[in-house]
Amino acid sequence: MSTNNLLGRRNFIKGIGAASIAIAAPAMAISEKTDGVEWDKEVEILIVGSGFAGLAAAIEATRQGAKDVHIFEKMSYYGGNSAINGGLFAAPQTPMQKKEGIKDSVDTMVQDQVNAGRGIADVALLDHIAKHAMEALQMTLDVGAEYHPYLQQLGGHSVARTYQTTVSCGAGITQPLLEECRKIGVHTHNRTKFEGFILGQNDEVIGVKMHDNYYFGEDQPGKTSNIRVKRGVIMATGGFAQNIDLRMSQDPTLTAEVGCTNAPGATGEGMYQMFRLGAVPVHLAHIQSGPWASPDEGGFGYVSNYSIYNFPHSIAINRLTGQRFMNEIADRKTRADAELNCRDAKGDALPPILITSYKDSKKHPNTKKVIKYNVGWKFDSIEDLAKHFEVPLTPLKQQIGEYNEYVKTQNDPQFGKNMTEAKGKFIEAPFTVVRLWPKVHYCQGGVQINTKAEVKDSLTGKSIKGLYAAGEVTGGIHGVSRLGSCSIPECMVMGMTAARSIMKA
Amino acid sequence: MSTNNLLGRRNFIKGIGAASIAIAAPAMAISEKTDGVEWDKEVEILIVGSGFAGLAAAIEATRQGAKDVHIFEKMSYYGGNSAINGGLFAAPQTPMQKKEGIKDSVDTMVQDQVNAGRGIADVALLDHIAKHAMEALQMTLDVGAEYHPYLQQLGGHSVARTYQTTVSCGAGITQPLLEECRKIGVHTHNRTKFEGFILGQNDEVIGVKMHDNYYFGEDQPGKTSNIRVKRGVIMATGGFAQNIDLRMSQDPTLTAEVGCTNAPGATGEGMYQMFRLGAVPVHLAHIQSGPWASPDEGGFGYVSNYSIYNFPHSIAINRLTGQRFMNEIADRKTRADAELNCRDAKGDALPPILITSYKDSKKHPNTKKVIKYNVGWKFDSIEDLAKHFEVPLTPLKQQIGEYNEYVKTQNDPQFGKNMTEAKGKFIEAPFTVVRLWPKVHYCQGGVQINTKAEVKDSLTGKSIKGLYAAGEVTGGIHGVSRLGSCSIPECMVMGMTAARSIMKA
Repeated sequence: MSTNNLLGRRNFIKGIGAASIAIAAPAMAISEKTDGVEWDKEVEILIVGSGFAGLAAAIEATRQGAKDVHIFEKMSYYGGNSAINGGLFAAPQTPMQKKEGIKDSVDTMVQDQVNAGRGIADVALLDHIAKHAMEALQMTLDVGAEYHPYLQQLGGHSVARTYQTTVSCGAGITQPLLEECRKIGVHTHNRTKFEGFILGQNDEVIGVKMHDNYYFGEDQPGKTSNIRVKRGVIMATGGFAQNIDLRMSQDPTLTAEVGCTNAPGATGEGMYQMFRLGAVPVHLAHIQSGPWASPDEGGFGYVSNYSIYNFPHSIAINRLTGQRFMNEIADRKTRADAELNCRDAKGDALPPILITSYKDSKKHPNTKKVIKYNVGWKFDSIEDLAKHFEVPLTPLKQQIGEYNEYVKTQNDPQFGKNMTEAKGKFIEAPFTVVRLWPKVHYCQGGVQINTKAEVKDSLTGKSIKGLYAAGEVTGGIHGVSRLGSCSIPECMVMGMTAARSIMKA
Repeated sequence: MSTNNLLGRRNFIKGIGAASIAIAAPAMAISEKTDGVEWDKEVEILIVGSGFAGLAAAIEATRQGAKDVHIFEKMSYYGGNSAINGGLFAAPQTPMQKKEGIKDSVDTMVQDQVNAGRGIADVALLDHIAKHAMEALQMTLDVGAEYHPYLQQLGGHSVARTYQTTVSCGAGITQPLLEECRKIGVHTHNRTKFEGFILGQNDEVIGVKMHDNYYFGEDQPGKTSNIRVKRGVIMATGGFAQNIDLRMSQDPTLTAEVGCTNAPGATGEGMYQMFRLGAVPVHLAHIQSGPWASPDEGGFGYVSNYSIYNFPHSIAINRLTGQRFMNEIADRKTRADAELNCRDAKGDALPPILITSYKDSKKHPNTKKVIKYNVGWKFDSIEDLAKHFEVPLTPLKQQIGEYNEYVKTQNDPQFGKNMTEAKGKFIEAPFTVVRLWPKVHYCQGGVQINTKAEVKDSLTGKSIKGLYAAGEVTGGIHGVSRLGSCSIPECMVMGMTAARSIMKA
């Protein structure tokens, strides 16, 4: 067993017994019927959550004519988990693709995602999102988001189609969206926690209960307001990767000791409340780990974006064998599973290394930072590198030689890597190196929605009136494994879709 | 695309759009608080569902001193899906294992299941069940269940540990259990459908709503009774394999055209009502297909038990290649996935065949039936067999020759099959042959429970007072894939456990 808890993912096996110890979150009221409810306030549209989905919904609703739109955020800061993600945005047939001469289509993007979804992705939703992705990208550009002047080809994507914010982070989108919200009159409320729905006589959502002056993680009484909602509620409350109890119920190995890239607020209560209302749970068991994370820093850190950028022209090496063990740009699940299999002779975790030529890595702004903060290292020779990481030198040298042949021939017979983006980028000294180990990153599961962002009632099969959901709180769209850079378009398109549906209802 | 719908599993890909068309089931009332509830009746313990779990719970509760135990069943007949399953019961360290000299243990049985569960099974629950499996088997013997005088080694089990009823069907257990229930004074009610919980002031379950004179599948008004429950409610409502809408939300390929072994009542409303109460959904996405089913008959049919019995001493052949394509006694998921990959040159489904020596197959009572009903065939020569199924003769003959070597050496280098049970059983003419194609069989997912059969509230993390669940309606126990013959012990042990917990509460 590993003595390093950060690395212990597959070493920890615990049962429900351990998982069911009382969680810290306070008990929340179950949704109530209106009988006797006294309203504290009335709004036109109420959005829970201030990430990509919530912000895009607020802007689109206002554009469609809504006059009194409110966003409620439980944390003290806005942007949720979106603000700290990698700021990667995939879309087909964009201006940058045209400029770079990359042939792409909605169908190609959908097919790439269907493949990663391993047959159980929702094709209708993927298609809807890919068709509107360019429109969502345009919304971010309109409000002032800035992107690097090049596209990236992320794992599982058959072409380069991913924009990235110049700050290499989701805040490069959430901040301009938030500013735009305020400019156009959207009301934003922080430290206000959603506590449940209030239903009308026909079980339609007509209001919500909100806990005011909420301090995250503290067990507090506080006042609850009853807010009447005229048009409807959009739940954009995000995933549950930080809810240890829930993620362990789906995978007992995902204990508190396992690294996680998410903001602390990603605890899933909004999703739970929708299940209580009758929403259909889909694919909760499919929790994704990011294969680009480092065991040498907390959360998403600096390495994640560094390695996402560098994977196409790098080699990932198993330190026990000195050899490659995966296609460096396979989908996330394929790579995370392969990394978790990198073990020493005793079976303990032995994080593999990603080797990149310094000359090719230095273009990315994080390269200096990973070296500065000691979560990545520069080596002048292969001998130094091998010694530092205790990798057998001879097979390592041979592997690099073979890989450089694949760069030359543009063909990887070893793992079938698409070598297009590696063209001319040989693995040569000096090298930049980081260690890799998966961290819990994204919840493919959530409540079932349709292409109108409506939430289905499990027993009637009809949409729950007055309720819409968008973003990571919804499930089933991506199937077993979501491709990188497909979350921002999903969140934004479905947020916009929810706003349009609500204005038409 | 296949022209045979029965075989179309992987050929059908549909999105949520199709799945969200209104389902046939009528809307059901959401659970209510007691305010103003008029009670029609009061009982001590109320059990919903009359399969293995419900019946075992009723008997155990009565043995523990309960005087007024009621079982409610929505169908006209008792036994649910349990009554039509294969009647296979796995337990470690049984009298028959001792007699046959088979070394086994609780830990070995748990480890076999953990392996099939692919790392996400609930070890604490598996351990609890394996420890009490012998006790549950004894309950069935006490009430008069009869078993074949030999053990079987099912796929994924490392030893032979499976009893099977002499009628080769679950009714060989549910019928004696039902008779025992009536003998000891348990009240049984059919055509009575559970419609929701009634909660006390602290959200504890204090009663249920029951639809009387219910006719399955008909949209009917009917009278609803409010039943006060003194000790608690045990939900033993089974899986949801017959709920097309729900299974497609988890896997869009599992359309109505895909075969299913389950009784029609397995539609999951009981589980849905528990989610509305706040139960945690676990592993709904893991729906198991039975690799022993035949495309030549409906449901579980005659072939399933025939092939379960014969797999250890048979070879499964891909008709396109004439060669084996799997370990015939791997776990269910491994085999179902391998069968689904058997395709003709155009990619259409080409159900593989299971070839058994007639002399070895004829011991099983179903062999005569599969031949009589034309869902299995007898051939005097390999040439006739190859011609009938259009299998290339030369590779088939060579494959049989090689396999017979493995029988002799007790070692299968091709797929690592455990050859113990194949000893001396060479593949020789005359042959019995059936076709194989997976059918939807079992839902690994459901509500989360602990080893007391208590149901956890998603928001408080505590058990929901007055509520217990047992059997297929619960989830997470088996992980990705349940081993054959492990459902009956699970249902019975957890039913008994629920009864013990309720009597201690």
